[in-house]
Amino acid sequence: MCVCVCVCQMASSNIRYGEGVSREIGMDLQNLGARNVCLMTDKNLSVLPPVKAVLESLSQNGVNYKVYDDVRVEPTDTGSNNQKVTFKDAIAFSKNNSFDVFVAVGGGSVIDTCKAANLYACHPDADFLDFVNAPIGKGKPVTGALKPLIAVPTTAGTGSETTGVAIFDFEPLKAKTGIASRALRPTLGIVDPLHTLSMPERVAANSGFDVLCHALESYTALPYNQRSPCPPNPINRPAYQGSNPISDVWSRHALNVVAKFMKRAVRDPEDLEARSSMHLASVFAGIGFGNAGVHLCHGMSYPIAGNVKTHSAKGYSVDHALVPHGLSVVLTSPAVFNFTAPMCPERHLEAAEILGADVRRVKREDAGGVLADTLRQFLLELQVEDGLGALGYSKDDIPALVRGTIPQERVTKLSPREHTEEDLSELFAASMKLY
Amino acid sequence: MCVCVCVCQMASSNIRYGEGVSREIGMDLQNLGARNVCLMTDKNLSVLPPVKAVLESLSQNGVNYKVYDDVRVEPTDTGSNNQKVTFKDAIAFSKNNSFDVFVAVGGGSVIDTCKAANLYACHPDADFLDFVNAPIGKGKPVTGALKPLIAVPTTAGTGSETTGVAIFDFEPLKAKTGIASRALRPTLGIVDPLHTLSMPERVAANSGFDVLCHALESYTALPYNQRSPCPPNPINRPAYQGSNPISDVWSRHALNVVAKFMKRAVRDPEDLEARSSMHLASVFAGIGFGNAGVHLCHGMSYPIAGNVKTHSAKGYSVDHALVPHGLSVVLTSPAVFNFTAPMCPERHLEAAEILGADVRRVKREDAGGVLADTLRQFLLELQVEDGLGALGYSKDDIPALVRGTIPQERVTKLSPREHTEEDLSELFAASMKLY
Ligand SMILES: NC(=O)c1ccc[n+]([C@@H]2O[C@H](COP(=O)([O-])OP(=O)(O)OC[C@H]3O[C@@H](n4cnc5c(N)ncnc54)[C@H](O)[C@@H]3O)[C@@H](O)[C@H]2O)c1
Ligand SMILES: NC(=O)c1ccc[n+]([C@@H]2O[C@H](COP(=O)([O-])OP(=O)(O)OC[C@H]3O[C@@H](n4cnc5c(N)ncnc54)[C@H](O)[C@@H]3O)[C@@H](O)[C@H]2O)c1
Ligand SMILES: [Fe+2]
Ligand SMILES: [Fe+2]
Repeated sequence: MCVCVCVCQMASSNIRYGEGVSREIGMDLQNLGARNVCLMTDKNLSVLPPVKAVLESLSQNGVNYKVYDDVRVEPTDTGSNNQKVTFKDAIAFSKNNSFDVFVAVGGGSVIDTCKAANLYACHPDADFLDFVNAPIGKGKPVTGALKPLIAVPTTAGTGSETTGVAIFDFEPLKAKTGIASRALRPTLGIVDPLHTLSMPERVAANSGFDVLCHALESYTALPYNQRSPCPPNPINRPAYQGSNPISDVWSRHALNVVAKFMKRAVRDPEDLEARSSMHLASVFAGIGFGNAGVHLCHGMSYPIAGNVKTHSAKGYSVDHALVPHGLSVVLTSPAVFNFTAPMCPERHLEAAEILGADVRRVKREDAGGVLADTLRQFLLELQVEDGLGALGYSKDDIPALVRGTIPQERVTKLSPREHTEEDLSELFAASMKLY
Repeated sequence: MCVCVCVCQMASSNIRYGEGVSREIGMDLQNLGARNVCLMTDKNLSVLPPVKAVLESLSQNGVNYKVYDDVRVEPTDTGSNNQKVTFKDAIAFSKNNSFDVFVAVGGGSVIDTCKAANLYACHPDADFLDFVNAPIGKGKPVTGALKPLIAVPTTAGTGSETTGVAIFDFEPLKAKTGIASRALRPTLGIVDPLHTLSMPERVAANSGFDVLCHALESYTALPYNQRSPCPPNPINRPAYQGSNPISDVWSRHALNVVAKFMKRAVRDPEDLEARSSMHLASVFAGIGFGNAGVHLCHGMSYPIAGNVKTHSAKGYSVDHALVPHGLSVVLTSPAVFNFTAPMCPERHLEAAEILGADVRRVKREDAGGVLADTLRQFLLELQVEDGLGALGYSKDDIPALVRGTIPQERVTKLSPREHTEEDLSELFAASMKLY
């Protein structure tokens, strides 16, 4: 246990929120003096209202831009088979044009790809692995300045508009990893709830589960004053600092909004109040986990997503097998919080209560079970697949899943409970079937 | 009423929080490459533990610095009579030394003075009134870059470590005014709760009332989408944008902490949990009002503070008459919230409930009365002077107090209820006696 002083720091992009605010983006770009803007999105979104609204504003304000709409949903590094659409392709596009401002209109896939494109275009001599998280990459600190990036999220999920994180699937490892640096944080996040109205039902559900897990994991993460090592110089502190009194405000509030609005938002795409509330909740949870960190659900999700072979995601209009990020994190959540509850039963009980459980007569030692049951009920009502088994995984895959979790130490070390490879195996096993 | 799109933006300094974190400041200054640091504080604090801890860290890290400890408690612009200690004196000191980083260790008085010293040292050709809020000053935008400023708050009150505001007493007008610009926002706020342990009982009470009013006023401020005018270009939006879903989270949370911990924090200076919680609440409320704004209690407080002649503040160890800021804002709060309640009775009732009132059977039209009574009871228990009368004001002073409120439009326009000069007179009259 760490005895030196640890700290929490509040960090987020600037966020602007309001119905229709994305129509102002042309003025923002003018204010920035932009002369050559890179607008990134994906093929699906490129013909939908969010991108149209942004393009109109750009035209009205005479902003010069190029569109890159080849972003892959759940991006990879190099692109296997015949998929050219990857981080590296977007980076090449950015290097070939000297953009002075980046605009990402889309979900986490688009925003993360855009962050990486900006980073490497501004560091043309860097190797791709230089900035990728250790131990997979070299984890070098970003020292140079990046170009301004405006993120316009169209899902109510990742919170990527607030964070300095970009996630991708590292193909050699069959697991996701990422790049984490304060330098990646967007200059501005434009949160326009009207953009969420076109989300298909399953995109709303899965991205909402991402919010749920961001909130739950950051609220139960190892407390900031128990984290180790504790670099004496504040400049060396990690971005993920453990749960702390500032991130707690965000995480708890986000969880309350999810409890109140998520079901409505998923079921009725026209329920603007619910979709708008979930959009803000994704921002709140993003700020929370961007400071505190996430832990086991996210750490274990990276190989769940990376090892997929055949599962095809309803509503995602993509031509590759895919376990959407929110689904990959939420399926282990009952097992994970059952496992972590003994370390901070009060927080687990509080979470269960916020999600609707009656906890008045529950003993502390039953906190994990109660939260797990509450989550299972929540997932059932939202018609989630019945565990990893329903995605095509079986017992035989567990060793590979564990292998893909080991290098995710950057997040898994924020678990409030220490864990062995055996523990991870058991958590995967317990997540094969939920109901 | 405004029909165009309005927005809210989340803005705050970076905040670092933890017991003992101020001991790291020497490293922060090294990381910034500081060669000549200006350390500002006041005479009283200069011999107390907060300043000692910071000076020790500076010495240990070989940081070169000069101390300015002439900050006046509740600063003025030019200094009347024989008081040389004012904004202008601190500015002159800064201009005469070419500092590359500023450090403010103290309450709002110190932090605000330091912000102004940094601003004008970086704009040596500007007239003092150039950046002062219109209509008193010229309200010019700050265009040049300032030097980094690290704020180390020692009161649990103003939240000045999070905001771009610096307040002073403008002597010709006998009322406070200020400078407001995002450029004034400190680079980093170091919130070390150990620093609050030396606060005298009345400083803890008055600065706590400041937190209470920041929370209540920002929570009840005119909603962001009803504010006018609505500059179409986002760059022209005011810092104070009205209550909004992001500032609401901060304001409501701060109010909860005040309700839970303020009495303990005032009564027992050794109650670290309570003082620490209030210290964080001051940050939360600062972020809340720094985005949403404050309204009538603050607008009316400026002439209450500026017209003082004889009231001497217990525990403030100053040689001039003084109405401490927190006291000057809280004395009108029962009258003000009784007046504003009809515009958003739910929020007033919610506030009363958080502060301990039983509101189950209260009608919406009685919200103002109930919140006013709850506040009066709260003030009584904390032994606050019995209204403006107890500070030496009488009916005859009301015209002068109203005159000093008129130019505070920057804040008073955020009142949810429109008001005439007559309304202001009545609010002052109703605040002469509380119990
Ligand atoms: N950077 C971070 O902090 C962070 C955090 C969590 C997750 N992630 C990453 O983000 C990615 C997931 O992002 P996501 O969940 O936002 O989804 P996504 O970006 O992968 O998009 C999912 C699907 O929804 C479509 N879509 C998005 N918005 C739409 C809208 N408004 N209307 C219609 N269709 C819409 C997309 O075209 C796509 O088909 C994953 O790669 C994940 O690892 C990043
Ligand atoms: N910038 C903003 O956003 C903002 C907001 C609200 C108020 N203000 C301004 O801030 C000023 C008031 O600041 P304040 O309420 O923080 O008090 P303060 O700075 O005026 O200090 C009050 C007294 O307490 C003493 N003191 C402070 N900390 C102490 C400690 N830890 N131990 C012992 N003594 C201590 C000081 O020496 C002084 O005598 C006013 O001028 C007010 O207008 C600014
Ligand atoms: Fe996530
Ligand atoms: Fe104040």
